[in-house]
Formats: sequence, structure tokens, C-alpha cells
Amino acid sequence: VSTVSTVSPESRAPRLIAVDWGTTSCRLALLADDGTIIGRRDDGPGILAVPPGGFPAALDRFVHGLAAVDTPILLSGMVGSRQGWIEAPYVPCPAGLQALVDRLVPLDLGNGRRCAVVPGLSVETTWPDVMRGEETQVFGVLARSGAGAGQFVLPGTHAKWLSVRDGRIADFASYMTGEVYAALRGHTILARLMAVEAQPFAASAFARGVALGAAAGGPGALLNRVFSARTLALFDRLTPGEGADYLSGLLIGAEVAAATAETSAAAVVTIVGSDALTQRYAAALAGLGRAHIVAAPDAAAHGALAIARAAGWL
Amino acid sequence: VSTVSTVSPESRAPRLIAVDWGTTSCRLALLADDGTIIGRRDDGPGILAVPPGGFPAALDRFVHGLAAVDTPILLSGMVGSRQGWIEAPYVPCPAGLQALVDRLVPLDLGNGRRCAVVPGLSVETTWPDVMRGEETQVFGVLARSGAGAGQFVLPGTHAKWLSVRDGRIADFASYMTGEVYAALRGHTILARLMAVEAQPFAASAFARGVALGAAAGGPGALLNRVFSARTLALFDRLTPGEGADYLSGLLIGAEVAAATAETSAAAVVTIVGSDALTQRYAAALAGLGRAHIVAAPDAAAHGALAIARAAGWL
Repeated sequence: VSTVSTVSPESRAPRLIAVDWGTTSCRLALLADDGTIIGRRDDGPGILAVPPGGFPAALDRFVHGLAAVDTPILLSGMVGSRQGWIEAPYVPCPAGLQALVDRLVPLDLGNGRRCAVVPGLSVETTWPDVMRGEETQVFGVLARSGAGAGQFVLPGTHAKWLSVRDGRIADFASYMTGEVYAALRGHTILARLMAVEAQPFAASAFARGVALGAAAGGPGALLNRVFSARTLALFDRLTPGEGADYLSGLLIGAEVAAATAETSAAAVVTIVGSDALTQRYAAALAGLGRAHIVAAPDAAAHGALAIARAAGWL
Repeated sequence: VSTVSTVSPESRAPRLIAVDWGTTSCRLALLADDGTIIGRRDDGPGILAVPPGGFPAALDRFVHGLAAVDTPILLSGMVGSRQGWIEAPYVPCPAGLQALVDRLVPLDLGNGRRCAVVPGLSVETTWPDVMRGEETQVFGVLARSGAGAGQFVLPGTHAKWLSVRDGRIADFASYMTGEVYAALRGHTILARLMAVEAQPFAASAFARGVALGAAAGGPGALLNRVFSARTLALFDRLTPGEGADYLSGLLIGAEVAAATAETSAAAVVTIVGSDALTQRYAAALAGLGRAHIVAAPDAAAHGALAIARAAGWL
């Protein structure tokens, strides 16, 4: 293992365990004071896999042997939901880092070790929207970049778009794009027209989908346009190997256009994520003429560190 | 069985068997010259249930004993698709009744009996849209009402909206609303929030959905708004018994708003259909201030009769 020689040993001491605990996954990062990630684990149980009352033991197993037993632990994500360890009430937007610190929900692990859950955020328009975990990631990006404003997208099953102003999360919106894609691709007539086996990414079919998805029209136009994945295949203008990426582009293109409709054309969208989906969002934003950058990885860990520091934990 | 005494026996003689043969269903009507429906059957096999080469035998069984063996048979619907009996090439819009007559695809049943398949329609915008069967239903409505213009909706798995001008189907669009609803309701996180057992229709939740679905926004707004079915449940503002109808309203509201966006506010939309879905579309149109009527039943049979008559079959 190579080391960076300009970092003093003291700054590399483990200071925080940041756990990003979601519905179906559980990841941790062991952080030093300067943000260096000293260790990682990504094989913890998602909250749905933890039996009732089993969270203390699950956490204990997951962090076992990782650092001194008094290293503080900060949890973010769905672990703070009604189905999780303890329900951390949503903090309404606009919300800055301090609002999260003020509303941390402490957990007594029985051994004096510091541990808390980061609350999620809510926002109310004509209906309430919620998130858990993404707020920590975005504060991590802000802490690393020094930025205090901008638009951020976190692709996923339920993609989140956040607007940050004056260092606070001012507003956000969820898009069920990933889950709608999976439902359409797996459980409608479109499934029959798409190759079952993995295909190389069909970039041009994706781009065609983005363009149609983003074109002007009302919300219901999407219900019409998804049918094009069928008819283009019927007329041999889309191959079975292209169908899934075309549909993906259509949905992501619609999402990106809707989420950026009121954003200045000159604004830069920051994509937060690390998987293949990140590249699809980058391609969609590029196709729609939107400047964008991909944030540095480990946003959740860096967000937890920023929160722990603001809370006076280190 | 009561009879209408002013109709002469001759006009009650069986003159046409109209078969509406779809992917998963097969229905027939036995018609007299004046449009009276003398007999019905609705238990034929959908085209997906017919083995390769099995269509002649399937039809023979389905019409057996119904009328004289020289009574002509007109087939409409997916039976004319690539997966059906014989592929009847799409007729491009605009298309009048005569265009369908000119492009009927005859079938030789081997006994001299007249039989043909009604072709479907296609229309090309930036992508091609297609229908099979709905054209016959709409010509049936026009034949019965004497109208030659208007907007028509045929609710269903793939709902169709048709514009008729000068007695011709000028344009149409498909909306995957029914299938998207089933996929979201059955295969996403929303499923967990909705009652499994049948519920009485939740009219006010449906209306709330219609209003949100129809509100201004781009195509991608739909991916955002469907998430409200989750968050409203999370905040106890939607009960498990209301969730499914709320989602149904949201999708149908979005569809109706998109499909009528360019229609004169004074225009009357004709709903063609006979099941519970028809009532949902009527409620959505009413909620959005759109005048509408529900067409008389048996549109497919009446359309087949109009085509057969124009073809000189009777």
C-alpha cells in the first residue's frame, strides 16, 4: 500500500466511521481528520435485511475490528426511516449543515461510544417530497469543493435533484426514473422487444431516446412516447440490442429536461455518483447542451465528516 | 326474449359475423342488416393462444353453428398483425372507411365463404404510431352517430386517441397508460403502499390524482409526480385503500391533458368502451372541464358492418 508522504501520521489516525445505510445496502468508510479514507466495507446488510431489534448487533458486527472502540460513528440514509433503526424526523428545506447537526438523533450503544443518525430532508410543494442520505452526500460534495450553490443530481432508483443556495439545500425533487425503467423494461410489452442478455451500451440509441424524452410536451406525453420503443422496433428502426438503452435515454432525457427547465442555461449541474448510471446522466446532460461535472467519489463519507466536525465530534 | 315488433323478420336475418380478435381476447357479434346484434360470443382464444397454423381451425370452432355457413366473416384487431393469422399492412393516416375497404386482406377459408381482415392504421410524426382494431370501432361509432368529426378515446392497456375530420381518421396517438399503471402498481415501491384486496372506487383520491397529473410541466414531471403516491402515503395523507386510484387518476389525468392540449376547449370527446375504465376517463374529463359523451356499445361490430356494407358484401 503506497502512502502520501506529506501527510503526517497524526492526520491519518482514524477519527470517524461514516455509515451510508440504505434499504438494500450498507457501506462504511473509516476517515482520518483530513478526509483521507483509511478503510472501507460495503457488505453490511440493507435495513430490510435486519430483523426487528437487530440494528445494534448488525452495526457492531459491521464495524468490528475496524478502529478503536471509541471511534465515533455517524449513520445516514434509510437507517433513519420508520423501517430503520430509529425514525429521525425530516428537517424541512431550506436546510444547511447546522440544521442537520442540530437535529442529529443520538443512539446509545451502551458503551459510551458516540453514535448518531443524520436526519433526512423534506420539502412541501403541492405534495411532500423526502430524501434520506442524499443530503449527506451533497454536503460532502460542498465540503470538498468549497462551493455553496448549484444544482446537483444523484441518479438512482429514485433520482434526486437538489438546488443549493447560500450553502443550504433550498429545494429538491425526486424522480422515480430508475424504478419506472425497471418496471417498463421488465413488466410491459416492451420487454419482448429488448434483448435479455447484457449488451454493449448503445450510445446512439440512448441519444435518440434523450432527444425524444426531452422534447416539449406535457407530463402525459411521456405515456405516449414510451410506446415509440415498441413501434420503432416493429418497423426495424430499433434493434433488440438498442431497445433498453433507447428507453433509458427517453426516461432520463425527460427527467433531465424537467429538472433543469427553470435552471439558467449557463448553470453547471454536478452529478453525484459513481456507477454506470452517472455516465448516462452525463451523456444526457451533454446531449441537451447542459454543462456538468461529476463530483469526486466518497461524497457520503465526506458529508458525514463535515457533519461530525460541525457537531464538535472532532 | 322480447323482440322489437316494428323490425321486419327479413332485417333480422343474420348477415355478418364480426370478430374483434385481439392479443388476449376474441369476441364476435352476429349482425342483422339493420345493425341488430342477434348473437354474441366472447370466449374465443386471443391470438397468443393460437398455435402456429391454427387460425383457420380456431375460427371454425368459434363460429360453429352460429349462422349459415356462407355468412361472411370480417376480422379486426391484432389478428392482422405479424403475430396473428396474416399480416395486413398498415394503412397510413389520414384514412377513411373506403381506404380500409380497399386494403381488406381476403382469407380463403376453402369453402367459398367470404372472409377478410381489416388492416390497422399507422401515422408518422417523429416516430411511427400504430393501431389495430380501434379504427374499426371508431368507424362503428361514426356509422351509428352520423358524425364525421371529433376526438375519440379508447381506454385500455394502450389507450388510443383519434382525431376524425371529414369522415376520416386524420391522426391518432397511443398512450401506454394502462400498462404503465399495472407495472407501477405491481412492480415498484408503490405496490407496498396500496391495498392488495379490491377496494371501492376512491373517487376523491382519483380526482386528486387527475388534478396533479394534468398540471403544467414537461414529460419528465410525470416521473416526479408518481413519487407523490409514496410520500402522501408516508405522511398519512393517502390511505392504502386510496393509493391505487390516486395513481390511476394521476396517469389518466396526465394522459387526458396531453391528448387534449391542442383540442378546442369546446370540443366534445367521445369515449369508446364499455368497462369500468370508461367511467374513469369520463370522471377525468369531467374533472378537467372537458365535455364528453360515452359512445353506444358494440362499436367494433357496427364498424365491421359499415366496412362490409361499403365493400358490397351486403
